[in-house]
Amino acid sequence: MRILVVNVNTTTSITESIGEQAASVAAPGTEIVPLTPSFGAVSVEGNYESYLAAVAVMEAVRAYPEPFDAIIQAGYGEHGREGLQELFDVPVVDITEAAATTAQFVGRTYSVVTSLDRTVPLIEDRLRAAGLSDRCASVRASGLAVLDLERDPRAAVEAIAEEAVRAVREDRAEAICLGCGGMAGLSEQVVQRTGVPVVDGVTAAVTIAESLVRLGLKTSKVRTYAPPRPKEFTNWPPS
Amino acid sequence: MRILVVNVNTTTSITESIGEQAASVAAPGTEIVPLTPSFGAVSVEGNYESYLAAVAVMEAVRAYPEPFDAIIQAGYGEHGREGLQELFDVPVVDITEAAATTAQFVGRTYSVVTSLDRTVPLIEDRLRAAGLSDRCASVRASGLAVLDLERDPRAAVEAIAEEAVRAVREDRAEAICLGCGGMAGLSEQVVQRTGVPVVDGVTAAVTIAESLVRLGLKTSKVRTYAPPRPKEFTNWPPS
Amino acid sequence: MRILVVNVNTTTSITESIGEQAASVAAPGTEIVPLTPSFGAVSVEGNYESYLAAVAVMEAVRAYPEPFDAIIQAGYGEHGREGLQELFDVPVVDITEAAATTAQFVGRTYSVVTSLDRTVPLIEDRLRAAGLSDRCASVRASGLAVLDLERDPRAAVEAIAEEAVRAVREDRAEAICLGCGGMAGLSEQVVQRTGVPVVDGVTAAVTIAESLVRLGLKTSKVRTYAPPRPKEFTNWPPS
Amino acid sequence: MRILVVNVNTTTSITESIGEQAASVAAPGTEIVPLTPSFGAVSVEGNYESYLAAVAVMEAVRAYPEPFDAIIQAGYGEHGREGLQELFDVPVVDITEAAATTAQFVGRTYSVVTSLDRTVPLIEDRLRAAGLSDRCASVRASGLAVLDLERDPRAAVEAIAEEAVRAVREDRAEAICLGCGGMAGLSEQVVQRTGVPVVDGVTAAVTIAESLVRLGLKTSKVRTYAPPRPKEFTNWPPS
Amino acid sequence: MRILVVNVNTTTSITESIGEQAASVAAPGTEIVPLTPSFGAVSVEGNYESYLAAVAVMEAVRAYPEPFDAIIQAGYGEHGREGLQELFDVPVVDITEAAATTAQFVGRTYSVVTSLDRTVPLIEDRLRAAGLSDRCASVRASGLAVLDLERDPRAAVEAIAEEAVRAVREDRAEAICLGCGGMAGLSEQVVQRTGVPVVDGVTAAVTIAESLVRLGLKTSKVRTYAPPRPKEFTNWPPS
Amino acid sequence: MRILVVNVNTTTSITESIGEQAASVAAPGTEIVPLTPSFGAVSVEGNYESYLAAVAVMEAVRAYPEPFDAIIQAGYGEHGREGLQELFDVPVVDITEAAATTAQFVGRTYSVVTSLDRTVPLIEDRLRAAGLSDRCASVRASGLAVLDLERDPRAAVEAIAEEAVRAVREDRAEAICLGCGGMAGLSEQVVQRTGVPVVDGVTAAVTIAESLVRLGLKTSKVRTYAPPRPKEFTNWPPS
Repeated sequence: MRILVVNVNTTTSITESIGEQAASVAAPGTEIVPLTPSFGAVSVEGNYESYLAAVAVMEAVRAYPEPFDAIIQAGYGEHGREGLQELFDVPVVDITEAAATTAQFVGRTYSVVTSLDRTVPLIEDRLRAAGLSDRCASVRASGLAVLDLERDPRAAVEAIAEEAVRAVREDRAEAICLGCGGMAGLSEQVVQRTGVPVVDGVTAAVTIAESLVRLGLKTSKVRTYAPPRPKEFTNWPPS
Repeated sequence: MRILVVNVNTTTSITESIGEQAASVAAPGTEIVPLTPSFGAVSVEGNYESYLAAVAVMEAVRAYPEPFDAIIQAGYGEHGREGLQELFDVPVVDITEAAATTAQFVGRTYSVVTSLDRTVPLIEDRLRAAGLSDRCASVRASGLAVLDLERDPRAAVEAIAEEAVRAVREDRAEAICLGCGGMAGLSEQVVQRTGVPVVDGVTAAVTIAESLVRLGLKTSKVRTYAPPRPKEFTNWPPS
Repeated sequence: MRILVVNVNTTTSITESIGEQAASVAAPGTEIVPLTPSFGAVSVEGNYESYLAAVAVMEAVRAYPEPFDAIIQAGYGEHGREGLQELFDVPVVDITEAAATTAQFVGRTYSVVTSLDRTVPLIEDRLRAAGLSDRCASVRASGLAVLDLERDPRAAVEAIAEEAVRAVREDRAEAICLGCGGMAGLSEQVVQRTGVPVVDGVTAAVTIAESLVRLGLKTSKVRTYAPPRPKEFTNWPPS
Repeated sequence: MRILVVNVNTTTSITESIGEQAASVAAPGTEIVPLTPSFGAVSVEGNYESYLAAVAVMEAVRAYPEPFDAIIQAGYGEHGREGLQELFDVPVVDITEAAATTAQFVGRTYSVVTSLDRTVPLIEDRLRAAGLSDRCASVRASGLAVLDLERDPRAAVEAIAEEAVRAVREDRAEAICLGCGGMAGLSEQVVQRTGVPVVDGVTAAVTIAESLVRLGLKTSKVRTYAPPRPKEFTNWPPS
Repeated sequence: MRILVVNVNTTTSITESIGEQAASVAAPGTEIVPLTPSFGAVSVEGNYESYLAAVAVMEAVRAYPEPFDAIIQAGYGEHGREGLQELFDVPVVDITEAAATTAQFVGRTYSVVTSLDRTVPLIEDRLRAAGLSDRCASVRASGLAVLDLERDPRAAVEAIAEEAVRAVREDRAEAICLGCGGMAGLSEQVVQRTGVPVVDGVTAAVTIAESLVRLGLKTSKVRTYAPPRPKEFTNWPPS
Repeated sequence: MRILVVNVNTTTSITESIGEQAASVAAPGTEIVPLTPSFGAVSVEGNYESYLAAVAVMEAVRAYPEPFDAIIQAGYGEHGREGLQELFDVPVVDITEAAATTAQFVGRTYSVVTSLDRTVPLIEDRLRAAGLSDRCASVRASGLAVLDLERDPRAAVEAIAEEAVRAVREDRAEAICLGCGGMAGLSEQVVQRTGVPVVDGVTAAVTIAESLVRLGLKTSKVRTYAPPRPKEFTNWPPS
């Protein structure tokens, strides 16, 4: 099967890193296709950028010329998943929800450790809208920007692990979700520091997307995710 | 003061109608400036179109060359309000929240009557994210598309009034919100049919925007709505 | 239009101060009529006094001989608003709800800073009953009694600002509501200390009451706020 | 021990009936003292009357000259319990909460059947404020006024039983609370019609009040129910 | 009347202590029958042991040869109450729910102080399933194992009182529930240290069980607690 | 990898059917080992039987002599999952949660269609405890007992499909979960009748268990699921 893994920002090195992370856990026979949006911000850290990313991700998938079996939206706490579900029949997996869902199978509660404090409300709102906030002990910020994570992975591990330890001690989290696409690959070190299971959204999303395809499931089209009605658009898509 | 009232679709006749509705209730000294996005769908009835509208509304306000004191997003249940709050300091009022907030002052519970059933989940999610769903008795659909409302106002009144009556009788709503920008102007007739207060989002939003300006309030910038960080964008805005 | 602004305690200097605060934001053409109950406590800081105030406020409005367009109940977290809504058709605005509602338009979350710790549960319960607790980050007490606020405004500012700063830092509030009628006039100083929008209930209530009147809205009478049934009373009202 | 059972209206025949109901279940050695407020409405069926009753009940207990061990507020869904808890150290039991609490021990869910539809919101709000709404399947109205219940008990049984049957069938209630002080004595017949346990608030309250006294428990005074601060009152109590 | 008080572990000295505690508050004419399960763990401090206790308690009651009027399950936060309600018609009272229900009558909020931290989630889940978590300020652990409580009551009082004091100060609890069957008898000392009402589950459960019997109430059999369907069992009960 | 799939009842034909269903979706290299408890009821349809099953399932896994990588508890709405998580390090997947989690990826809301009405509360409670009830539109009963499903699959499909259609129409479910281990194999027919995705718990659980193993995740041991403390047991396990 073929799974599209769509980055939410336009930094191709991040797309590559996400793609490699996804491929590392994919089953034999699964083809991971990493996509980068053709427009948007070089990193997504707020609502304006996230709404823009939502649209850019949708257009990136629409522009992909080959058939595919599932879509992974590889941005943590970002807008847009429902739009993809309207446009396509194949399963759509958001890494925020993939990580939370997976964490709930191995711990009674989980915390998310993300990049900047300003993205905490986006993640909280997303989890709540998805009905996944009940067992969320906390969403904590490491204080590192998305691109900092890439530039200095060592400091990143330190900052993330520190918040993860606090989440376990103070918020009573029993599992940790790495709340940023760019954190892929840090799991092992955070496990060692916290002693609890650590879930990376990208790899979790790959196994969930594969599962949905293997179960023969597609997005329900009876109401919320019914295909858009045929209608005219003004000046869109951009040429 | 000057209030921008931004339509979410690209149909200028609807923009005009919204603008007139807004102007009808504006205080002396308030200038209503209706804006139409430069790109997007001719009507917004689903997530894909709504995410696109979110971005188009933000760009429309960014392109507006004069100073202004408040922004009204005139789409019911649409995405994007938080992005406007990041980009600008002036108060931003979403008509979904304006209507609900206003209805709560005159009835213990309220229902929303909207256009198509497929937009019900968007409105429900929006009210919940805004912390305004607790007193929401129901969100009901009249079954009419946005553009149908414009084409046949008489049938529209009939369909909307019928659902409003059901909301009062079956869901125990004590007030009704007209859940679509295009419904502006139908309030009086729905009042007569239901016997309960009927709130139109656009006019409610105008009085709220004026109130916030008069109180000297601006959007809080300490966390969720902090200005976007300076960064590069790829191929955006579209030229 | 004429708006009755009813104090909940019998201290006329507080009534005057509330009246001036209300008048300072009223639109041209709005007449603010401050009322003091004819019986009750000199300050309201608990349930017994608050229930008594509820009845006294209702009787004060019933005794007012002229027509009026709206009622503001100027006590923070006090009982009684629903009774006023039963007795009269015009809109009734409680300052607790006015402040919270207004704060929600300028911050994702808000905190209330009130007088004594013992009034915190009243405010929490009131916000919850009004469906406005979802975005409430905290209700904090400055430790000052209502009459202390009047006697030593300088110390009051200090104590209130300190709790407001804690609400922003520790509880992640993005806006502050001044939770006591007697705090009117301290907004500016708390803004400077916290850097977030500060909402005073009395002025917020004035703009909301004006808005409801301008929109032609009256209290819904279909169920909760239906007029009292005609019946006999024993020894009431007191002669 | 001596338990004060305070009627919320001024109709002495109802006070007597409540007193008899209470006495029928009291343990040997328990003295039931029925009290009627000295002012207020002849029946309480709405917020205005209920707020007045809250104050009248408090004054009735304050005027009682002998010592006592517990207080029962015998009005369903009425305001005021927190005020009594401030004024006195002995346990205070509201029949609304007594019935719900008791019902929860014998059924997974319960419904309340009350008098008029207009009192439904009061009961719902009261249960919610007391943290007892989670297992409440519904609050239903028989359509009978409080005094009608007294005048025509046979029709009352019929109307109440009909709603109780609906609560069991349609709302999946597993127990029924009789939601009106005046319904005392109808339990047996509703049991026969529904086949589920039926709880009368007055008798439930007696056993709970006795239990609290036997356990040596008194109202907590550390915060919410701390005694009123010493202060002056204007024109109160009425002479 | 005869009330079975069933210990959840197989340590008979604890059964005796629970029985004495229960008898100390029982009304004249109430016979307390303490029962020890014939299989299970010597102390219950986790899910495996608790599920086993659930079954063992049910079998212990099934094996009791004489008639009885009510059942008390004397384990804090343990599984199994619903099974007892299916098997028998008489009222079943779980001490977790008995304590919380009782505490709610004397304080706006309550906290539970239990033995080991690992049992906190069990108690939290139990309170939530019973619809009693809304007013729960916190569940805190003293760090003492069940059998430690028995061995060193003095250290137990110290550790429990310390957490109770924290619950009142930090979590704003207004009443304390002693969250362990083995804590019976420590109430008085915790009252002295905290100044708030302290509720012991076993004694609270006795008064509630007696109340339900006096009110003539039995477990509802219409749905959740309907008797098990007649069917075959494999190798059960153990011979 | 080896996955234990444990039936909750002692009917081996159901164990076989569950095993076949599980094997049908297992990845190459996954060995499915169906287990039948050595004691318990021939079908589980209530709390008594479910608590007994919880213990029997735990003992069945404890008695399994070979190593294994994950455990699936194949009973819908049954007790016991937390106990398994305490006893073992490998991931434990309950089919109730597996189905709900999976359904949430393909529909905004889901309904469960189960066997008898009496099991509805168990499923509701289980979903709520797992934080998965927020998007649950309803739990509906087909009225068929577990063993009826096996005896007359044709009638079973009819009854289940009918409730599924109602869930979609009346409760606005966008996906259906088959709420009974014995329903394995009916998915396709329910899809045809409802037009929405249908999730079978057993197959969903297999893909989730495989995913957790592939991601290298194990049950968190820091608090809720810490291994049982070493202690003595009386007469257990049964010889």
